[in-house]
Amino acid sequence: QKSRCSVSFSAPEQELLCIFGTGDFGRSLGQRLLHSGYRVVYGSRRPHSCGPLPQGCLCVLQAMSHEAAAQLASLVFLCIHREHYDFLETLTPQLQGKVLVDVSNNPKKNLYPEANAECLQRLIPGAHVVKAFNTLSAWALQNGPSDANRQVYLCGNGAEAKQAVAEVATKLGFAALDKGSLSAAKELEDFPLQLFPEWRMPLYVAVGLTALIFVYVVIRDVVYAFVEQGKDNSFRIMVSLANKVFPIVSLIMLSLCYLPGVIAGFIQLYRGTKYRRFPDWLDRWMLCRKQLGLIALGFAFLHMVYTLIIPIRYYVRFRLSANTISQIRENRTSVFDTTTAWRTDSYYSIGILGFSLFLLLGITSLPSVSNALSWREFSFIQSKLGYLTVFFCTLHTYLYGWSGFLRPYKWYMPPAYMLSLVLPSVLIVLKLLLLLPCVDRSLTRIRQGWERTDMQDGSEKPLLT
Amino acid sequence: QKSRCSVSFSAPEQELLCIFGTGDFGRSLGQRLLHSGYRVVYGSRRPHSCGPLPQGCLCVLQAMSHEAAAQLASLVFLCIHREHYDFLETLTPQLQGKVLVDVSNNPKKNLYPEANAECLQRLIPGAHVVKAFNTLSAWALQNGPSDANRQVYLCGNGAEAKQAVAEVATKLGFAALDKGSLSAAKELEDFPLQLFPEWRMPLYVAVGLTALIFVYVVIRDVVYAFVEQGKDNSFRIMVSLANKVFPIVSLIMLSLCYLPGVIAGFIQLYRGTKYRRFPDWLDRWMLCRKQLGLIALGFAFLHMVYTLIIPIRYYVRFRLSANTISQIRENRTSVFDTTTAWRTDSYYSIGILGFSLFLLLGITSLPSVSNALSWREFSFIQSKLGYLTVFFCTLHTYLYGWSGFLRPYKWYMPPAYMLSLVLPSVLIVLKLLLLLPCVDRSLTRIRQGWERTDMQDGSEKPLLT
Amino acid sequence: QKSRCSVSFSAPEQELLCIFGTGDFGRSLGQRLLHSGYRVVYGSRRPHSCGPLPQGCLCVLQAMSHEAAAQLASLVFLCIHREHYDFLETLTPQLQGKVLVDVSNNPKKNLYPEANAECLQRLIPGAHVVKAFNTLSAWALQNGPSDANRQVYLCGNGAEAKQAVAEVATKLGFAALDKGSLSAAKELEDFPLQLFPEWRMPLYVAVGLTALIFVYVVIRDVVYAFVEQGKDNSFRIMVSLANKVFPIVSLIMLSLCYLPGVIAGFIQLYRGTKYRRFPDWLDRWMLCRKQLGLIALGFAFLHMVYTLIIPIRYYVRFRLSANTISQIRENRTSVFDTTTAWRTDSYYSIGILGFSLFLLLGITSLPSVSNALSWREFSFIQSKLGYLTVFFCTLHTYLYGWSGFLRPYKWYMPPAYMLSLVLPSVLIVLKLLLLLPCVDRSLTRIRQGWERTDMQDGSEKPLLT
Repeated sequence: QKSRCSVSFSAPEQELLCIFGTGDFGRSLGQRLLHSGYRVVYGSRRPHSCGPLPQGCLCVLQAMSHEAAAQLASLVFLCIHREHYDFLETLTPQLQGKVLVDVSNNPKKNLYPEANAECLQRLIPGAHVVKAFNTLSAWALQNGPSDANRQVYLCGNGAEAKQAVAEVATKLGFAALDKGSLSAAKELEDFPLQLFPEWRMPLYVAVGLTALIFVYVVIRDVVYAFVEQGKDNSFRIMVSLANKVFPIVSLIMLSLCYLPGVIAGFIQLYRGTKYRRFPDWLDRWMLCRKQLGLIALGFAFLHMVYTLIIPIRYYVRFRLSANTISQIRENRTSVFDTTTAWRTDSYYSIGILGFSLFLLLGITSLPSVSNALSWREFSFIQSKLGYLTVFFCTLHTYLYGWSGFLRPYKWYMPPAYMLSLVLPSVLIVLKLLLLLPCVDRSLTRIRQGWERTDMQDGSEKPLLT
Repeated sequence: QKSRCSVSFSAPEQELLCIFGTGDFGRSLGQRLLHSGYRVVYGSRRPHSCGPLPQGCLCVLQAMSHEAAAQLASLVFLCIHREHYDFLETLTPQLQGKVLVDVSNNPKKNLYPEANAECLQRLIPGAHVVKAFNTLSAWALQNGPSDANRQVYLCGNGAEAKQAVAEVATKLGFAALDKGSLSAAKELEDFPLQLFPEWRMPLYVAVGLTALIFVYVVIRDVVYAFVEQGKDNSFRIMVSLANKVFPIVSLIMLSLCYLPGVIAGFIQLYRGTKYRRFPDWLDRWMLCRKQLGLIALGFAFLHMVYTLIIPIRYYVRFRLSANTISQIRENRTSVFDTTTAWRTDSYYSIGILGFSLFLLLGITSLPSVSNALSWREFSFIQSKLGYLTVFFCTLHTYLYGWSGFLRPYKWYMPPAYMLSLVLPSVLIVLKLLLLLPCVDRSLTRIRQGWERTDMQDGSEKPLLT
Repeated sequence: QKSRCSVSFSAPEQELLCIFGTGDFGRSLGQRLLHSGYRVVYGSRRPHSCGPLPQGCLCVLQAMSHEAAAQLASLVFLCIHREHYDFLETLTPQLQGKVLVDVSNNPKKNLYPEANAECLQRLIPGAHVVKAFNTLSAWALQNGPSDANRQVYLCGNGAEAKQAVAEVATKLGFAALDKGSLSAAKELEDFPLQLFPEWRMPLYVAVGLTALIFVYVVIRDVVYAFVEQGKDNSFRIMVSLANKVFPIVSLIMLSLCYLPGVIAGFIQLYRGTKYRRFPDWLDRWMLCRKQLGLIALGFAFLHMVYTLIIPIRYYVRFRLSANTISQIRENRTSVFDTTTAWRTDSYYSIGILGFSLFLLLGITSLPSVSNALSWREFSFIQSKLGYLTVFFCTLHTYLYGWSGFLRPYKWYMPPAYMLSLVLPSVLIVLKLLLLLPCVDRSLTRIRQGWERTDMQDGSEKPLLT
């Protein structure tokens, strides 16, 4: 840093930039610019009292009035709030043909109908407004690029203006990403405010399901045992019951992740076209499939680990040895049952394979991996392997249930895993229907753009599909 | 989307683009362009009967004849099949100096000697042909960028033409990646057709090995027990045998992943130069090392999980308690054997360390991680840590075998794990040979460009190596 | 490759490039350029005796003297060592206005005060020096882009010069990344030399801690048992003791990863500003937090696996059955203790949840994932979830200790896990202090740029924060 600064300091072509606003962001930006070998001049409403300014390379001028500042530099950073934009109109002559970098963010979304940058462009039509740097934190500006602070997204209508800003960003050590014309500004301004928007719904679903099923199993296993047999099973909550809840939630969410695709298929079949929009609820559902799947994977992981710790549990060890002891005392000899061995082993085995496939799906949905795939490869994994995963996990649960399906229920409440089987079973049946040759054929044609209504256009349909 | 569309709609500088072909892709593209604030005009062979066109922002003209369309816009998307290119020649005058975006794909690879885009450029030399958008799915165009549909690869001979297309792609929300001159078109046209080409061979190997070893262990454990002792062991297939197959396949494939490197080393030593090409089989082998390694990692993962579920298996629990019971009944007392404890513990321990290293190799081969590494770091991990992994896993297996190597074989068939040890042992020996100071020195010199034949050039060799 | 080469060979606009130096890198580069359809001419000090040059497309001229070569091409690659730069001065006239690509690296860091590229620019002010390709291995040039060899970083003062080099890089199949002005050259030249610089310190800490704690537990468990009871516990080293060391190191490093943040908070509170630099040791510490965390995660993973294999260990099985047998023989009956069940289960459960959260932190720190997050999302995960992880893991350890805290120590040495609890406990207490409403409020204001000293500037403070 230091050395670099001094280097570009000695260099002749050291550029002068202007910053309006001496707030936190303005200062951090100035500091960083100085360290990267720019000369910086601040514009402030109170030139003689705008507090300490960065002293990085001793080459910063005392903050001066906006007019003077604006005239000096060809590139001006606006580090001020939208409310203070109005006074800029008075500077219109000085800002003619300058590049105005709008770094502003709003306290919350949709506060204004129009993006700050667009409003700014309206105010000063003569200037080239570029929206940039607003997705960075002041912290990142002081300490350089780090994990979530590598890219500087920018947008604007002037190509040269954008180029100029991109060069500054690059010199500061960030990667500049052009997001197109100024109409993308709103998007950029909303970005720093978002907190996992597309994860909300799936998380609510997950939490809701978990709570529901947890209560159900507690009633069925703990309360029932307490009321009917006066036994205190409460200790089972921590592991045994948790390990009933996790797989159930996981399986349900996994099928929730593939259900919308099947529904969409049937809707398209019914309508005979793919060009009419789906109902909103379906659209929103389809957009959060990935999140649904990843959360389901998380629960599946918990299920696996919880299962693997079973044998080190005090309760299990106690029961096993008690079992052995009683056999001795009562002089019983239990015989080895091959069927049970087959069943249990194969249900472990299938569970493991299902989980491994699931893990594979998760890995391929990592941005860097999916970017490296062609969409044919991606859809192959996510759809073909995805349904295989659903199938394995469902089979795993059926094998777990086995003869349990026939046993009488406690308090008319079927075991929880039976409830978890409804959705995936339905999903698999529907999917099989769609795979029937006749159905599949017409669906494929529809997805290739064919429409039941128009006939004469058929010839051009198979194009590029 | 909506708002943005309307915004750019109100904007004056709304560009007009032309699309030839009203097929699925053409329509989806048109829709997306409209939503992103372009005006779109279609060119069709049947202007008055080309079916429903997207009505996104009500600003689409009725599809008109190609001539008319071509004259209106400076940028033309060709969403038609290669077979229909010929008629374009009639449009040569109208297409002079226009940017032609070729989005076509072929039904299968190597259908034509020449890439579609290159053939197009030959047909209309006056136009600037740019290959782009062909790697996207129509679905991605309708629903915006998603996992495997973020990048728009483009190539062409004219820089401005490429720039223009890149801007459109950016405005549609995709990331434009320049792949160089039009000679890269063939590559781009093959991309959407590929389905894990570099994974084929490794997968075949994996499947073949799995089948082979599975049959072997079934014969040795199940059939043998059935024939010789009339015992039905079949239930062991699901877990016990699977857990014999996985580690073996994993170890063999791991050594297959490092063997070619060693072979290459010996070839270079023998030839005394690194500038002559390796035999094709070796080249192909070296190119799929990464895939071999990742598949091996997958099998290692399965091995781990299958091992961890051992204690919850019915069969195992039964055996253990039966064991205890018999001790009581026959009043035996088994003494604790420290050697066994040492051996088993250390072979678990080494197995775990080996697996962890293996996992580390897998993580560093994620695109985003390996891109962040300098090649010195990458080769350090992949080679140094890689061989350490091989060593650990091999040692793990030897410790597992222990005294078993001396026991008599059933039906002259050695236990499967012995077979798995051949390849890694050979690999380790060869690698050690290459690490002998004298050998290592000359190999290093060769890899730095030195050649046994020429002497006078020696001085310039150590440059930049 | 071949076809492409021939294609661009037939093409008229085939560009001629010049390479100075026929060393390994020079040759590999030439080969690759030829394959990508460039014509190449070499410059060598010994034109008639510079050894075999690549014969890719038969279009390479016999290496000629530098003067001649330089005059032919407008773009010159310098594949020679810095020591040989001097002779270039004699070529100043021929190199006027040419693009000089400096690919040189130095044998070790800080060998020269000034970057090679900058020194070159000084030597030949008339040329446009661009630093590029030096981060690639000769291997990558011969075999095309692969994992750690995808990007070509370049920097230079001339925009067109950089553009020209970027185009060549793209045509060779690499992704060109502009790193700004020539002042970034030093950085680029150091890049290939680095071997995990930011991982050094964390690794040393990890190794040191591991060794220390290992010795401690060996003395406490093995030596003690041997001396006092003459029992040989040594076999416990491989798994039991290892599984004591891993979690302890993991927990300590996890808290080391969050401690600096808290310390920084207190320093800022004390100083009443965030604009004064932290002491160096703290700065360096904060810069390797990510690495500390990832290593801690690795140890946590080992801890988990080592825990899961417990029940398949010979020692454990022996003890369990011996336990059962003794119960029978002595006709004891142990009663089930619900408290123990509660305690053990909940400490397993909390451990698992802690590990899962930890894993989540690890995943989000993957470059591709963190790039996709807004910094608000990233800091939410890394800070909020991070402290939750610390809390869970600490609670896990406390529950493990339980009543153990009161037992007498062997040789006055407390059990190792107690030592591991010091740091995280302190961390949690400090963090809670910072979360006190009053403290939190003033810290937030400071982090938003407010400073205790200046008052009049307060109005502009809340801007953009």
